Amino acid sequence: MIYLFTDFGSCDIYVGQMKAALLRHAPAADIIDLLNDVPDQDVLAGAHLLAALSEALPSQDAVLLAVVDPGVGSGRHPVVLQADGRWYVGPDNGLLSVVRQRAKNWRVWEIVWRPDALSDSFHGRDLFAPIAAMLDSGAWWQGALQEVSGLEVELEAADLCHVIYVDHYGNAMTGIRQGALPHDAVLLASGNRLSHARVFSEVPTGAVFWYENSIGLVEIAGNCSRAAEQLDLMVGTMLQVIS
Amino acid sequence: MIYLFTDFGSCDIYVGQMKAALLRHAPAADIIDLLNDVPDQDVLAGAHLLAALSEALPSQDAVLLAVVDPGVGSGRHPVVLQADGRWYVGPDNGLLSVVRQRAKNWRVWEIVWRPDALSDSFHGRDLFAPIAAMLDSGAWWQGALQEVSGLEVELEAADLCHVIYVDHYGNAMTGIRQGALPHDAVLLASGNRLSHARVFSEVPTGAVFWYENSIGLVEIAGNCSRAAEQLDLMVGTMLQVIS
Amino acid sequence: MIYLFTDFGSCDIYVGQMKAALLRHAPAADIIDLLNDVPDQDVLAGAHLLAALSEALPSQDAVLLAVVDPGVGSGRHPVVLQADGRWYVGPDNGLLSVVRQRAKNWRVWEIVWRPDALSDSFHGRDLFAPIAAMLDSGAWWQGALQEVSGLEVELEAADLCHVIYVDHYGNAMTGIRQGALPHDAVLLASGNRLSHARVFSEVPTGAVFWYENSIGLVEIAGNCSRAAEQLDLMVGTMLQVIS
Repeated sequence: MIYLFTDFGSCDIYVGQMKAALLRHAPAADIIDLLNDVPDQDVLAGAHLLAALSEALPSQDAVLLAVVDPGVGSGRHPVVLQADGRWYVGPDNGLLSVVRQRAKNWRVWEIVWRPDALSDSFHGRDLFAPIAAMLDSGAWWQGALQEVSGLEVELEAADLCHVIYVDHYGNAMTGIRQGALPHDAVLLASGNRLSHARVFSEVPTGAVFWYENSIGLVEIAGNCSRAAEQLDLMVGTMLQVIS
Repeated sequence: MIYLFTDFGSCDIYVGQMKAALLRHAPAADIIDLLNDVPDQDVLAGAHLLAALSEALPSQDAVLLAVVDPGVGSGRHPVVLQADGRWYVGPDNGLLSVVRQRAKNWRVWEIVWRPDALSDSFHGRDLFAPIAAMLDSGAWWQGALQEVSGLEVELEAADLCHVIYVDHYGNAMTGIRQGALPHDAVLLASGNRLSHARVFSEVPTGAVFWYENSIGLVEIAGNCSRAAEQLDLMVGTMLQVIS
Repeated sequence: MIYLFTDFGSCDIYVGQMKAALLRHAPAADIIDLLNDVPDQDVLAGAHLLAALSEALPSQDAVLLAVVDPGVGSGRHPVVLQADGRWYVGPDNGLLSVVRQRAKNWRVWEIVWRPDALSDSFHGRDLFAPIAAMLDSGAWWQGALQEVSGLEVELEAADLCHVIYVDHYGNAMTGIRQGALPHDAVLLASGNRLSHARVFSEVPTGAVFWYENSIGLVEIAGNCSRAAEQLDLMVGTMLQVIS
């Protein structure tokens, strides 16, 4: 199973080309769009989202093709990470670093294979997809990967006290993991004091609250209202915990 | 064949997780995104859209995983409906009730199976997807379903004289089924009198009209114009028939 | 492999119905969404995008189901084009004509087959999808196609000096093919003089430039900025080359 995790856009021209490249090299692969609307070029938010979504996957048997790559065509290295049994393929720009730091067991390889035709701006299609297909099909190409001691770029892997994603309902996910906040903690967001609730239907219509969402993150939501717009939250908005 | 019909958003993090859960339990399943942008949390519009889209499917051999579920985590029951040969899996909140009332033959089961890990907010992934996979693969799990006499929540299944969906072209679908309006009927929408045309190319550029669309519903459309914006139509806008 | 290239909208009700129709007739087909957000009803932009995206596909073994069809239900003919080994299925309204004119070898057939139920407004589902499935499965239906001498509608296939697509990053693709502009050419867009760069990371943050993109077209982009909004570019905006 190959999962796509990119900022290439669900409605754009890039994802289809990635899938064509994947199926060319691994015709029997199952491909799932995990998320193709990672906040554009936001490697830090992407790194924390990737870690949370990976945890929520049903099985270990997974190749995650993760590309948020504002530096494509520059000197950053393409890498493969194996972390707690799963494969990750992407740029060494920090995107995989939160997964790596939270993993019990991990190994890193630099991708030294290069395709005959490598575009300057779409390594997702030309370089990362073939390698993901190779890993999914189980047969390594001679000399494609070269083990290295670790990632070059490591971002902060501790809980992030800001908004990392706003979903289409207007709910704002934070980089704070469940369990990190006691249920009597109060979250301060844009000057508003938010209390915990277990689920939407527990609060009055229109009320905004925080809860632990289905991928293990603290999320700010409203019951039948769009919390992000009500409180003017966007990716990057800082939060405060007061308890 | 498993069809997804949800308000989880085509561009969001939820649909991929649903598919991962489906393929975990039914690795050979074909999954089609029928619509993942049902108007958010709008159970009534969803119920009428589901009935119309179901009718338009090519075959009886289908499992429809239908989740528009603002009450997730509250007391509403998860159910399976068999209607005229098709399977529907979703919450008993009215979403399946229009299909049921229009069906010639139907049976209803409550889902009594529960997964080891059931999130409070994402039963689509944790509860409904495994049951849909079970139905698709054809082997019922012992004791997973318990037949009941009917649905608890039943919404109005007669034609709805309001807008239930606006597509990306700006066309506004109503809950009125084809055949319900004679072709000389006039539809009054936001104070505008609209006449029937068979197809876009029959009216002048920019003209707005009503026609019977490809899923059997009366739809308000403009030729090379966005009818919904021109006439200020949105989901829920009431219409009048004058003939 | 069947590729979808339409203006039906990735988030709308149409693509799922197309896939249901495809899988009904070709149950083993792999289907890839190449692009379902071609600028609405823009046949000229679509024709140039289709030619560029076709070129970028990894293999010859492809059926492209291409539907941008504002004249559906009128007199335009449904056709099949074979061009340099690939199959294209769609309306004879110009959409396939850029591919045809640039092909070394080509043949055209009119689709004379009609389904039992043909809606007036959704030939993509009812007529084109079954024929695409037929071509993908390799077994022609007796009498479904009738060879003709060429397309009826031919659009300009030379490079187009205007914007044909704006992606979700805010990059603006033109209809100018790579190689047509020397690297010291200056592109004039909304009064701004744009120079060439090889890749995003070569220019300062916020700077706008032109480059040759991953599907072989000249594209106007900004490094960490949204060029289309900065320069007020949209599909159809004319450009000038000054060198």
